Amino acid sequence: MGPGAPAIAPGYPHALAIPTRWKDNDVYGHVNNAEYYALFDTVINAWLINEGGLDIAAGTVIGLCAESHCDYRAALTFPETVTAGLRVVHLGRTSVRYEIGLFSQAAPEPAATGWFVHVFVDRGTRRPAEMPTRLRASLERLRIAELEETPAR
Amino acid sequence: MGPGAPAIAPGYPHALAIPTRWKDNDVYGHVNNAEYYALFDTVINAWLINEGGLDIAAGTVIGLCAESHCDYRAALTFPETVTAGLRVVHLGRTSVRYEIGLFSQAAPEPAATGWFVHVFVDRGTRRPAEMPTRLRASLERLRIAELEETPAR
Amino acid sequence: MGPGAPAIAPGYPHALAIPTRWKDNDVYGHVNNAEYYALFDTVINAWLINEGGLDIAAGTVIGLCAESHCDYRAALTFPETVTAGLRVVHLGRTSVRYEIGLFSQAAPEPAATGWFVHVFVDRGTRRPAEMPTRLRASLERLRIAELEETPAR
Amino acid sequence: MGPGAPAIAPGYPHALAIPTRWKDNDVYGHVNNAEYYALFDTVINAWLINEGGLDIAAGTVIGLCAESHCDYRAALTFPETVTAGLRVVHLGRTSVRYEIGLFSQAAPEPAATGWFVHVFVDRGTRRPAEMPTRLRASLERLRIAELEETPAR
Repeated sequence: MGPGAPAIAPGYPHALAIPTRWKDNDVYGHVNNAEYYALFDTVINAWLINEGGLDIAAGTVIGLCAESHCDYRAALTFPETVTAGLRVVHLGRTSVRYEIGLFSQAAPEPAATGWFVHVFVDRGTRRPAEMPTRLRASLERLRIAELEETPAR
Repeated sequence: MGPGAPAIAPGYPHALAIPTRWKDNDVYGHVNNAEYYALFDTVINAWLINEGGLDIAAGTVIGLCAESHCDYRAALTFPETVTAGLRVVHLGRTSVRYEIGLFSQAAPEPAATGWFVHVFVDRGTRRPAEMPTRLRASLERLRIAELEETPAR
Repeated sequence: MGPGAPAIAPGYPHALAIPTRWKDNDVYGHVNNAEYYALFDTVINAWLINEGGLDIAAGTVIGLCAESHCDYRAALTFPETVTAGLRVVHLGRTSVRYEIGLFSQAAPEPAATGWFVHVFVDRGTRRPAEMPTRLRASLERLRIAELEETPAR
Repeated sequence: MGPGAPAIAPGYPHALAIPTRWKDNDVYGHVNNAEYYALFDTVINAWLINEGGLDIAAGTVIGLCAESHCDYRAALTFPETVTAGLRVVHLGRTSVRYEIGLFSQAAPEPAATGWFVHVFVDRGTRRPAEMPTRLRASLERLRIAELEETPAR
């Protein structure tokens, strides 16, 4: 992906370019498996903050991770820039299930796919709380039609 | 867990004490979800190296992560020491499926549980390769009986 | 260091055993240089919380890093446990300068030495604030006599 | 910095845009101090690989960090994109001293400045080794005139 080209991830309504970092590579020369989840976290929370109005410093409702998963198909390697695709496959009143695809530069198929469940909670009590209207509206924009959904595993 | 007490994780044949680090905590005051996988990685690879004879610098066979998963049940928080329990639920010729439980100090139930699949490959070609005898024997010691296995999800 | 042995770091009043993690190792097979600072942070903040009563979630005074430095002398490698030594070389009204030594198992000389300056600030305004009495008292216990101090660089 | 705009860091011949990640933020709501060094590492090694021909997987000469330092002046916060400026202030036969400036979006003054010393060594013996011609030439392009150099501290 050239600098300045908009990030595109086939099958995902939103995409974000995330450069790898030197220390992402582990001793086997590729991005460490745990770092894939740091990329998941990044594309998700950047969306929630920038588009959904999530206030991580002072908002009363915050999102906590309840479940995450990743299938690793191909290696990612520093210094490449990864494109992270994001879509919503289930949107409840207090929770959302995202699917994420991580794409290597120039590869049409994702190097990894995964899912991530956010439960929204009250910052103080940490009890489930309805997501704010603006945040919910931003997630609606990432929904894909039923037919496109990944079958339940 | 007092210093020096052997790490114990009910239901897991092996356990390792892993202190949290300052930067594990994210902006919401608890260990970040991606770091849980760094703990998975650590208990697994420490076992492979110390007990299985894995040579991460020069061995011809290395283990790559094919799939990982985590269910988050309770928060972990710096500066606590986490006990990571490890067991093997499937042991093939070239792959192994581990289950991991992360326990907070003084809590009988795990704060998180997950699984992790290693595929062993030739370091050069990255094609699946049979795991060395000593490594396999070390994994046999972590197997739990069929009846104890977590049902397929 | 055997499990359960108290951590000892020659020249440092306090020492903490910190196991390395799998992903600390970078592509060259040793703990990445940036992770040394994560170890600095960990020995310092664990002390402030456990001994100094620092309340990272709700306290009105927090410590921010103003300056840090590290000299790398020898490699650290997963899965070894590192012993982090901590001492205080300057203690002001609102700031403290620590020196840290990271020791490999069985090595009498540190693998790395560094310093770290904390400025204590009001959590809300982020303006310098006097450190609480208990916290200050805990830092007094880490002071070394003038003669032992590292000469200014 | 808008997407696609070339990264610019006043006073530094090279600049790289590096987005922050969710887990860079620590419990105090800003990028953790150790992560600044991960950004240093990234701008440096991306240059060495892309411009200097450094082969991190198989090259006979590799760069190890001998010393690093950071002065923190202002906070960086996820989800902002940081601009990392890079310059060379000393270039020896087997070592190089870089200076790095990290710039927040829209701020003319760096949020942090630091230095980093690489010693080039033989991958096998880890003894100092002359840097390859192409790599050295790439570092020459980052040199700044004597008068611009930061005075010794």
